[in-house]
Amino acid sequence: MKITSLTTACYRIPLPVPLSDSTHGRLTHFQLVTVQLRDDDGGEGLGYTYTVGHGGVAIRAVVERDLEPLLVGADSGDIDDLWDRMWRRLHYVGRGGMASFAISAVDIALWDLQARRQELPLWKMLGATMNQVPVYAGGIDLQFTEDELLRQTETFLEKGFRAIKMKVGRADLQEDLKRVAAMRKTLGPDFPLMADANMIWTVEQAITAARELRQYDLHWLEEPTAPDDFPGHARIANEGGIPIAAGENLHTHREFEMLIASGGVAFPEPDVANIGGITAWLRVAKLAEQSGLPVTSHGVHDLHVHLLAAVPNPSYLEYHGFGLNDFLVNPLPIANGFAVASDRPGHGVELDWDALQKHRET
Amino acid sequence: MKITSLTTACYRIPLPVPLSDSTHGRLTHFQLVTVQLRDDDGGEGLGYTYTVGHGGVAIRAVVERDLEPLLVGADSGDIDDLWDRMWRRLHYVGRGGMASFAISAVDIALWDLQARRQELPLWKMLGATMNQVPVYAGGIDLQFTEDELLRQTETFLEKGFRAIKMKVGRADLQEDLKRVAAMRKTLGPDFPLMADANMIWTVEQAITAARELRQYDLHWLEEPTAPDDFPGHARIANEGGIPIAAGENLHTHREFEMLIASGGVAFPEPDVANIGGITAWLRVAKLAEQSGLPVTSHGVHDLHVHLLAAVPNPSYLEYHGFGLNDFLVNPLPIANGFAVASDRPGHGVELDWDALQKHRET
Repeated sequence: MKITSLTTACYRIPLPVPLSDSTHGRLTHFQLVTVQLRDDDGGEGLGYTYTVGHGGVAIRAVVERDLEPLLVGADSGDIDDLWDRMWRRLHYVGRGGMASFAISAVDIALWDLQARRQELPLWKMLGATMNQVPVYAGGIDLQFTEDELLRQTETFLEKGFRAIKMKVGRADLQEDLKRVAAMRKTLGPDFPLMADANMIWTVEQAITAARELRQYDLHWLEEPTAPDDFPGHARIANEGGIPIAAGENLHTHREFEMLIASGGVAFPEPDVANIGGITAWLRVAKLAEQSGLPVTSHGVHDLHVHLLAAVPNPSYLEYHGFGLNDFLVNPLPIANGFAVASDRPGHGVELDWDALQKHRET
Repeated sequence: MKITSLTTACYRIPLPVPLSDSTHGRLTHFQLVTVQLRDDDGGEGLGYTYTVGHGGVAIRAVVERDLEPLLVGADSGDIDDLWDRMWRRLHYVGRGGMASFAISAVDIALWDLQARRQELPLWKMLGATMNQVPVYAGGIDLQFTEDELLRQTETFLEKGFRAIKMKVGRADLQEDLKRVAAMRKTLGPDFPLMADANMIWTVEQAITAARELRQYDLHWLEEPTAPDDFPGHARIANEGGIPIAAGENLHTHREFEMLIASGGVAFPEPDVANIGGITAWLRVAKLAEQSGLPVTSHGVHDLHVHLLAAVPNPSYLEYHGFGLNDFLVNPLPIANGFAVASDRPGHGVELDWDALQKHRET
């Protein structure tokens, strides 16, 4: 089937509550970039990516100006080949960065189109036999007071979460430790609790923090330092003595190869919306598997739930709304610690285009 | 002085003669993205970057949508601080790729503005005492016949070049060897001759090629394999036995750290138009110096001539027109193997805006 058209848009969406982490500071908006593909058989596919507030209009321009001419007229079924052609076309300005975001959105649309053609939910087309995935709630809560943090935790538990991640990386490590201690006390000793530093620390600071945090039995410590300091990650893992999660800011397979080869990561976490789509995410999951590691996720849980259901080495699915839930016809259901992938054909994500309309970037 | 406005544009410029290399195939156009800064004291600065045909409109969008709001009202003199703020703002979609191209264009404009304010040519403001830099002609000639290759060589010699680079990476290595042999025979034994494979080979193929090429005494072999395969570069350098040049496709300081640490490069070649501008180029040059290596350049010779004049560890300046010469009021003069940096204030590059106008991307 030949691709006949692409429709691309970028939306600037206010967050219901401004979020905060150690690196991005106060986040008030995110950007959603959508790609709708159509083929000459009436098939349709929806792909999307997102940013934390910058770069969305440029990503839309990459799809419209650089990828669309390559895609229109091409066979929608040969996803590997299209992926390689997109990668090569953008190589000089790419090998990561916004090129990977743009390829992600297109690649997700191609997979959606293919699964919808087969009338299969994505998880089933990918070979999964179950559509339930253990999930954790990703709090973006660095600037919350301890009270707010614990109230948020209560809400998470009421919603059915049985694993939670919190932010760390305050200016004073003692505050982090106090907050983690409060969370551990509230949740009890066996509850999976993760902490995310969003790259704020130097390697030395991260080692110090990891050693102090060990007493709270974290499931993992996430992004302790700069994402591309691979030897640094290895030192933190070895000297800090806590399992490390990392990868949301890596945009190429090669970067995951280097991170994994360094020994600095226990939970690789590719993001399907910025690693290059489902094609690239599955390659990283395979790389993790071959290295004896699980794979976890970052963001866009409505998509990752299918992927984690389908791989033999899944860890927890990250869940955080990032404001997108308000624009979904069918938000992802959570129950008893599990997220349940949709049975609708494709990834099953349906956007509320009317609600999005007023947030459209010109 | 406060920045009061930015004017940004993207031009799609046909190459006078279509060029060819092993990875990008046939190139018919390049894209020029320009940034003009003005401040409240009447100061002006011009920056620019370029692509090999894709991504230019997106880079313009990054400058207009994501960087301009940060820059307008800021102090134009605090370049390091502005660089860090641009980097952080684009980090989630950046850490290389198009973000680095956009930052490059802005950063170059900031340096130009500062040098023009001081009424100094850039090379002098950077502390250089001489404005002459040894230069080589970069041929983009993989698909030229041997006759065309030798005719091009004659033209280079007539123009004053005393060092030349040619493309390699044909499907049949024997053809590469024959062409390099013909060039060496024409140029004589002591003439600096480089060869550029534009990332086409696997590591094994590159080692084989390097061993065969050794007999022709190349000054360097450039981009033998994928730019981010750092251990691969080390193997090629060690087992191939030829000095390796690489870096035009690396877009972050960290990538240069990894490449240099691997031992896989003898001639690091950052490109000021995609590494993050003059600020980032100088940091990579310093890193090379601290590692006991020279630094060379890629593209935009009108800018690099100032930078190579100013560092203590310069290698040859690459010269290739890439079609930009037709749009410059004062193309870079070459004589007796040297390029001469302009004495005009700033980088001294003046674009022919009228001639550019009809190539403007909407």
